[in-house]
Amino acid sequence: MSGTPPIITLTTDFGVQDPYVAAMKGAILTINPAVRLVDVSHAIRPQAIAQAVFVLAAAWPYFPPGAIHVAVIDPAVGGPRRALVLRTDTATFVGPDNGVLSAALSDDVRAAAGDSPDGRVRLPAGCRAVALTNERYFRSPVSSTFHGRDIFGPVAAHLSLGVALEELGEPAEQIVALSPFRARTQPDGSLRGRVLHIDTFGNLITDVRLEDLPSETRVARTAVVEVAGRTIEGMSATYEPGADLRAVTGSSGYLEIAAPGGSAAALLKVDLGETVVVRRA
Amino acid sequence: MSGTPPIITLTTDFGVQDPYVAAMKGAILTINPAVRLVDVSHAIRPQAIAQAVFVLAAAWPYFPPGAIHVAVIDPAVGGPRRALVLRTDTATFVGPDNGVLSAALSDDVRAAAGDSPDGRVRLPAGCRAVALTNERYFRSPVSSTFHGRDIFGPVAAHLSLGVALEELGEPAEQIVALSPFRARTQPDGSLRGRVLHIDTFGNLITDVRLEDLPSETRVARTAVVEVAGRTIEGMSATYEPGADLRAVTGSSGYLEIAAPGGSAAALLKVDLGETVVVRRA
Amino acid sequence: MSGTPPIITLTTDFGVQDPYVAAMKGAILTINPAVRLVDVSHAIRPQAIAQAVFVLAAAWPYFPPGAIHVAVIDPAVGGPRRALVLRTDTATFVGPDNGVLSAALSDDVRAAAGDSPDGRVRLPAGCRAVALTNERYFRSPVSSTFHGRDIFGPVAAHLSLGVALEELGEPAEQIVALSPFRARTQPDGSLRGRVLHIDTFGNLITDVRLEDLPSETRVARTAVVEVAGRTIEGMSATYEPGADLRAVTGSSGYLEIAAPGGSAAALLKVDLGETVVVRRA
Repeated sequence: MSGTPPIITLTTDFGVQDPYVAAMKGAILTINPAVRLVDVSHAIRPQAIAQAVFVLAAAWPYFPPGAIHVAVIDPAVGGPRRALVLRTDTATFVGPDNGVLSAALSDDVRAAAGDSPDGRVRLPAGCRAVALTNERYFRSPVSSTFHGRDIFGPVAAHLSLGVALEELGEPAEQIVALSPFRARTQPDGSLRGRVLHIDTFGNLITDVRLEDLPSETRVARTAVVEVAGRTIEGMSATYEPGADLRAVTGSSGYLEIAAPGGSAAALLKVDLGETVVVRRA
Repeated sequence: MSGTPPIITLTTDFGVQDPYVAAMKGAILTINPAVRLVDVSHAIRPQAIAQAVFVLAAAWPYFPPGAIHVAVIDPAVGGPRRALVLRTDTATFVGPDNGVLSAALSDDVRAAAGDSPDGRVRLPAGCRAVALTNERYFRSPVSSTFHGRDIFGPVAAHLSLGVALEELGEPAEQIVALSPFRARTQPDGSLRGRVLHIDTFGNLITDVRLEDLPSETRVARTAVVEVAGRTIEGMSATYEPGADLRAVTGSSGYLEIAAPGGSAAALLKVDLGETVVVRRA
Repeated sequence: MSGTPPIITLTTDFGVQDPYVAAMKGAILTINPAVRLVDVSHAIRPQAIAQAVFVLAAAWPYFPPGAIHVAVIDPAVGGPRRALVLRTDTATFVGPDNGVLSAALSDDVRAAAGDSPDGRVRLPAGCRAVALTNERYFRSPVSSTFHGRDIFGPVAAHLSLGVALEELGEPAEQIVALSPFRARTQPDGSLRGRVLHIDTFGNLITDVRLEDLPSETRVARTAVVEVAGRTIEGMSATYEPGADLRAVTGSSGYLEIAAPGGSAAALLKVDLGETVVVRRA
């Protein structure tokens, strides 16, 4: 990384009209004025941890190795939840230990969360985590309601300067994770999933992973998709016009429902959680 | 440009709550970590090519020469529309060949679009364009629905590193253009235009170009402006209070209708396309 | 500051769908391509000077010393209001002389605004201001409606290159200031304030300063807060669940009313200016 500045990305539910994002950026730049800041999103719905996981997981893999990703969706700020740094072989993540750092983990690792009474999973080989306890790397004083500015941002800034993980606190072997976003295969062979995210265009992003579709349906386009009382025959690779609704093999690896030229969410009057079924014709 | 990083600006309809903008930025930074990214707007209405042309054309001339401007409003992504780079004597533009790159062209050049059956215009002297076909400069694999991340962003990043235009594909001699945004002179000498854009303040930006106004009206302020059943006498150089509606000679070179201290769009209950007439008193 | 780029922050009511912010950034980068730009907010309500003061005052103290903060909320653009640079011992501020630069001043200094017929205050020791009159540091030509792009941005860019204050115009000894945001103590010892800001989460930020609360109430949590017909007993240091409404000692130094897991503004159906009273139990 010689000559190019380290990258810190930010994912929060802070919105953009308040001083919160800027205060956090100022706190980071005060520690490392050379860092490059990139916003992932500050429009996560308030305290919507699952949405933050979806958004961050769809963005961070496109950043250069070594980037530091800070995620602050933190409804229990100031309470007993831990603050963590998680380092994988390609990136570093900073945030509260409430599931938001699931964005860094594979579905295989996250799958163990369902069997765990406290929602925690064991870190896979190659991952290390540290609970942030060394106040030397925090802003001082630390408020009880704004750890983005006082803990997560400053710690990320120190990491970008090369501070070692072990300096920051005690090793953590387990972290809270969300179960994978993944439709379930039914006894009749169909996949039953739900709407995970509705994007700016009104496209419905579902938890039906393209890799879970029988490969022949993807190629031959013979699958049938059912959503909100409508049936869509076949899948498209693009949002091409010609039908009011399309099932699209989306760019994030999930099946999407799109209304070419309009909003599928508005057309179907659906919200997050709506059921989507994929079956062979 | 020795010592200062190259600039890439971004104009899209991606919104800011989704991972799309960040994924595109990550893809760019992976190729050129030293580039400087500047958002023009990600709040273009979905697939509103004309709005994107208006916004980008009002912003890019203020950037340093050599800046690279990426515009991704791309309703036909994955279809047969071409992907282009267009280089003028002062800037470089990257985007789909659907009219959005009109932002780079003068009204004189765009005027030919109206006479062309396919909306294409011949490039003026000093402009070069290339159809993006060399996959070596794309992200791999290329998705069929997200060329901002997989083609336009990466190509802009390679351009910022100094890759030559001819490396990227085949020369293009014509590109799709939108006809100029320009009110028409009526037989009685009046100008008849329409509302082109409504800004954050509720100001109505019209397609009446200040340079098309008879110069004496601009100076003597004797023109009369008619919009939505209202008549405004004279034009102002500022949004000064004292009248509920003002015709203002705006900073982008177009006539604007403003309601000092409020929203003209709300006051007049008008939307894009509303007719505006300017006549001598 | 050797080796690290100077910082310019931007606070405006320009919104993010229009070309205004980008044009201003382009104008700055044309003068100093090495400067680092940070958005504080472009979502200040149109022409809401007090909101801009609140937001900027809650953000700028977290930036590194030497940062330049540009604030363009400018309803009287093009009129006789002055354009100013204000330099304190830690930062530099650029904007119109309409009160928005109050964000740089302490409550003690701002308190004199109430006694001044024109709302002006004398600058404290250690502060210098200059009225921007030297057109050499403006963009040319200067429009009459967009001084952010043509005056404030360019002047900030020149400041970031090291231009001296005295180069920019004539010294100013007084500037327009807003009275402090501060609840008043009533004869019965209670504090009577109002809602100053409603943030993205729906939290009500009041003008009750934590430092004005009797210290025993903060510690013993025995105070009673009245707002919109509701009474809240005690104050919390966090947004912890367990009550539908909480009075929280917020991270910006003001008392906040929060609805854990929801929006206090929606729950109480209140807007800016709503009365808030704090009294001993």
